[in-house]
Amino acid sequence: MHPRRALLLLLPVLPPVLPAARRVRPLGQSPLPRAAGPAPARRSSSSVAASRARPQGRAMDGAQAQAEAALGPFRLAVRQQGDLVRKLKEDKAPQVDIDRAVAELKARKRILEAKELALQPKDDIVDRVKMEDTLKRRFFYDQAFAIYGGVSGLYDLGPVGCALKNNIIHIWRQHFIQEEQILEIDCTMLTPEPVLKTSGHVDKFADFMVKDVKSGECFRADHLLKAHLQKLMSDKKCSAEKKSEMEGVLIQLDNYGQEQLADLFVNYNVKSPITGNDLSPPVAFNLMFKTFIGPGGNMPGYLRPETAQGIFLNFKRLLEFNQGKLPFAAAQIGNSFRNEISPRSGLIRVREFTMAEIEHFVDPKEKQHPKFDSVADLTISLYSAKAQVSGQSAHKMRLGDAVEQGVINNSVLGYFIGRIYLYLTKVGVSPEKLRFRQHMDNEMAHYACDCWDAEAKTSYVSTKRSLGPGGGGPSPSPSHQPWGLSKRASHPRVPVTAEALTRNGVSHKVDDSSGSIGKRYARTDEIGIAFGITIDFDTVNKTPHTATLRDRDSMRQIRAEITDLPKVVCSLANGTLTWADVEARYPLFEGQETGKKDTIED
Amino acid sequence: MHPRRALLLLLPVLPPVLPAARRVRPLGQSPLPRAAGPAPARRSSSSVAASRARPQGRAMDGAQAQAEAALGPFRLAVRQQGDLVRKLKEDKAPQVDIDRAVAELKARKRILEAKELALQPKDDIVDRVKMEDTLKRRFFYDQAFAIYGGVSGLYDLGPVGCALKNNIIHIWRQHFIQEEQILEIDCTMLTPEPVLKTSGHVDKFADFMVKDVKSGECFRADHLLKAHLQKLMSDKKCSAEKKSEMEGVLIQLDNYGQEQLADLFVNYNVKSPITGNDLSPPVAFNLMFKTFIGPGGNMPGYLRPETAQGIFLNFKRLLEFNQGKLPFAAAQIGNSFRNEISPRSGLIRVREFTMAEIEHFVDPKEKQHPKFDSVADLTISLYSAKAQVSGQSAHKMRLGDAVEQGVINNSVLGYFIGRIYLYLTKVGVSPEKLRFRQHMDNEMAHYACDCWDAEAKTSYVSTKRSLGPGGGGPSPSPSHQPWGLSKRASHPRVPVTAEALTRNGVSHKVDDSSGSIGKRYARTDEIGIAFGITIDFDTVNKTPHTATLRDRDSMRQIRAEITDLPKVVCSLANGTLTWADVEARYPLFEGQETGKKDTIED
Repeated sequence: MHPRRALLLLLPVLPPVLPAARRVRPLGQSPLPRAAGPAPARRSSSSVAASRARPQGRAMDGAQAQAEAALGPFRLAVRQQGDLVRKLKEDKAPQVDIDRAVAELKARKRILEAKELALQPKDDIVDRVKMEDTLKRRFFYDQAFAIYGGVSGLYDLGPVGCALKNNIIHIWRQHFIQEEQILEIDCTMLTPEPVLKTSGHVDKFADFMVKDVKSGECFRADHLLKAHLQKLMSDKKCSAEKKSEMEGVLIQLDNYGQEQLADLFVNYNVKSPITGNDLSPPVAFNLMFKTFIGPGGNMPGYLRPETAQGIFLNFKRLLEFNQGKLPFAAAQIGNSFRNEISPRSGLIRVREFTMAEIEHFVDPKEKQHPKFDSVADLTISLYSAKAQVSGQSAHKMRLGDAVEQGVINNSVLGYFIGRIYLYLTKVGVSPEKLRFRQHMDNEMAHYACDCWDAEAKTSYVSTKRSLGPGGGGPSPSPSHQPWGLSKRASHPRVPVTAEALTRNGVSHKVDDSSGSIGKRYARTDEIGIAFGITIDFDTVNKTPHTATLRDRDSMRQIRAEITDLPKVVCSLANGTLTWADVEARYPLFEGQETGKKDTIED
Repeated sequence: MHPRRALLLLLPVLPPVLPAARRVRPLGQSPLPRAAGPAPARRSSSSVAASRARPQGRAMDGAQAQAEAALGPFRLAVRQQGDLVRKLKEDKAPQVDIDRAVAELKARKRILEAKELALQPKDDIVDRVKMEDTLKRRFFYDQAFAIYGGVSGLYDLGPVGCALKNNIIHIWRQHFIQEEQILEIDCTMLTPEPVLKTSGHVDKFADFMVKDVKSGECFRADHLLKAHLQKLMSDKKCSAEKKSEMEGVLIQLDNYGQEQLADLFVNYNVKSPITGNDLSPPVAFNLMFKTFIGPGGNMPGYLRPETAQGIFLNFKRLLEFNQGKLPFAAAQIGNSFRNEISPRSGLIRVREFTMAEIEHFVDPKEKQHPKFDSVADLTISLYSAKAQVSGQSAHKMRLGDAVEQGVINNSVLGYFIGRIYLYLTKVGVSPEKLRFRQHMDNEMAHYACDCWDAEAKTSYVSTKRSLGPGGGGPSPSPSHQPWGLSKRASHPRVPVTAEALTRNGVSHKVDDSSGSIGKRYARTDEIGIAFGITIDFDTVNKTPHTATLRDRDSMRQIRAEITDLPKVVCSLANGTLTWADVEARYPLFEGQETGKKDTIED
């Protein structure tokens, strides 16, 4: 039994008002340290990634039909290039030719998306400047260290923004951690170098940068080159031949290495856009904040650029915590740091931000999720890899059909796509502005078998609105301390009781392990779980169905109807009821009246 | 009206199991940046500081009487030295003589406390090694990066520790932020150098360090010197004269500067305790983690060593948010970082930790707290400055008496001491292991008029237990999004309604500003407050007492009995009730039936 990472959920809980995610930087190698436990293997990853535009899922009206007609040639161009890539791969053409064709495919996709954006309905446009002004005036958020001149890419959340963020995290905890009984951990942000060397971050978590040789100002090389070429191309004197050459450069922009970029900067005579000064040649700039841990100066470390490492490093301990059984999931909520070269786009690209991340570990031979039925009927906008290389747009599809038809690789992945959809719409993302986009072969990490990004349309790419102010929705019930649910007799009232507990905001864990009931109590007593409900033979054999409730501190038990228990535990947990009150209300439990022989299977 | 900081609450929410706080480093100058708003002024600070031992508040039994007899000479020694210090001050003696006398007073206090500890009852001892072993085995927490050899001072919280931490934060938010309607903000941890230069941290947030000249290993100079002298003194061959000399050095240990320390290391021939190698002379080592923000290398920054700066930097915006009115309080929960030279003591002294901090701003001419009566009857163990210099131990005292007799400077400070006491006992600190210790004159920041530390007795100083495992107490009700409470007619049903809302876990803010009701609705509509209760003339004039409830999205209102409303809002907020349900149950509100003329004052 080899555990495999099956799902990575990267959900940005910041920014509070315009949720749209951090870029996910493909590292070309697993972020899983070799020594940590499971070997790097196939990973299915679902992450909220950079915002994109896509057609709305409405019935097609006149304007839309007109837009579709205008988009026709662009869709065709993508499809033709997609066919070419497929054919090259089938023919086992040289890798360099495949790479070139894929780069061209990506460029055609970008042009198609830009056209789709340009043709979007006008009623969907928001005045972002005005909105940001309101958000700052009412102190949802503002530039950090403003009285010292401010630092770009760093923001403070004021009282309303902070409340909104707290609500979003609170709902995330309830929706994922409580509902799925995920193991939440809390690891340090300071990370010694060897960990991030192993994961590939020290060598590859970088962007190319150029520097004004006189003022020292730094620019992201690709952004600067793009702006420079676009300016040259907009010149009326620019020949068609020259324009075409530059278009070729822009198409390949993501694929250039350091030397090629350096040549391009010389060839196109790129200068600082601010001063006109010469620029240094491009150098790779690592985006991690470096520091030294301890006083010796011999332990370099970094602020973590993502939260996943902590989960992988603790894999063995977490597996033990889960009594050695798969599947299980672990989660972490906390801050990460990326030293962006020149952060723009307001809260979308910042240098310090909160992440909430889940890693779900499954046996690769058992990629079926028992609760998939609960999301199978959701109809969600899916943008499959096939649609992307055919020049089609996203389609609404029933999740059950998507898994059955193999559009989504397996029901574990399908389940979490459904759960993420439910979460994002719960916190205020409009279903009409949300799609799940499948990674194409060339985008996926080498160990992934399938990967989907949740993409929310925001005003940053499209000038469209993705979320109104004051979203965040109502806060749900309290997050209580974990407590146990054990059972003496067979698997019938447990699911019902567990569901009622979740509805009452009480986190819980079903303990169906072997071992005496006393041993199971001892195990939960030790970690401070205050209350335990036990389903026994009497629960099954007698009506009304009752179960026992045990108080850790007094080690005493009462017996009550199952339907009463969730509210009783909730009241005990928030202090509106004492154990003495409970004993006054319900009979003490002394022992069962029936046994296995009386059990009626139902 | 000059705002003054009146209270600093530094409450450690980490460690989860053995709450005892971070050391608070006196900076010798205000951490308030000069440009931030209010000028540095007197500050009353109440912080949970390093753990200390003190006598139990029990009726004196035989063993205790015996212990008191043994302590008599030590108490006398303190009292005599305290009298000497007072006399020197009265006589305006040279500062050097006063300093020397104060250092001797501190040393005698330390010896008294050590004796008190040695005489503590034996039944109060916990096996810390065994307990920590259990906590690590059940993954409450463990050394971070253990598979890479571990990094001292960095720990990861596992599922149970993380749940415990979440509960402690949750209760803190409800107990302080909701109950006191405090403005919570969330600021960046990355801090540019000028901010921490102004606050004094860049120059003074340091410990002296010595280095093994061959291995490069670093040690805290004062810790190493102390251990070295204690070893020399324990040698039977050590003469009485030499012993007395070294005792004198230990007494002054906190007061030595860099040069004096360097001389002492030479005089006593201190070598590395690990290798026996020579040591470098002591140098000041700044405890902040340094990094560079942005790619230019010209913006040095630090990870914040405390969370207060963010509140001070945003003072002006927060005051505006509070409509320009005092008093108000702001809070922040988040991580801080201190690069300890050689962290020990498990979770007590770590390099990365979570803080929860409140700054309460009051008009210095109005240091009376309207809710002081609610805590005045609490009887709390207080260790006044006077008791400390007289060789007495802490005494239990009614808070109301302490303020009335001037032991505690004012009722605002008294109120928060009471609230902190209630919080700490709520999360599991035994009242018998908790005392509030007043800073002596020489300990306080220059701008403070009074300052108390909450001190919890832990096993680290005394080998005694302060908290059992699995503390943290039950989680309370949910933290809901803020919503408004406005009123059309006079301040009588508001307090009752507000209290009922807090009990139901609904955060709220009373809006008693002037301006039309429409304008007040508009202001809260803009920041996304979903529901508003309005107390009007009908509320006051008619029975049963009713109020209106308004839904922001539909802008419709119903009228219901006041006693019903908190539960209705709670159900609306957690989604178990929709606005349509509410409209079906209660009459729509169209307008008031009575007016001011009908008002009966009550």
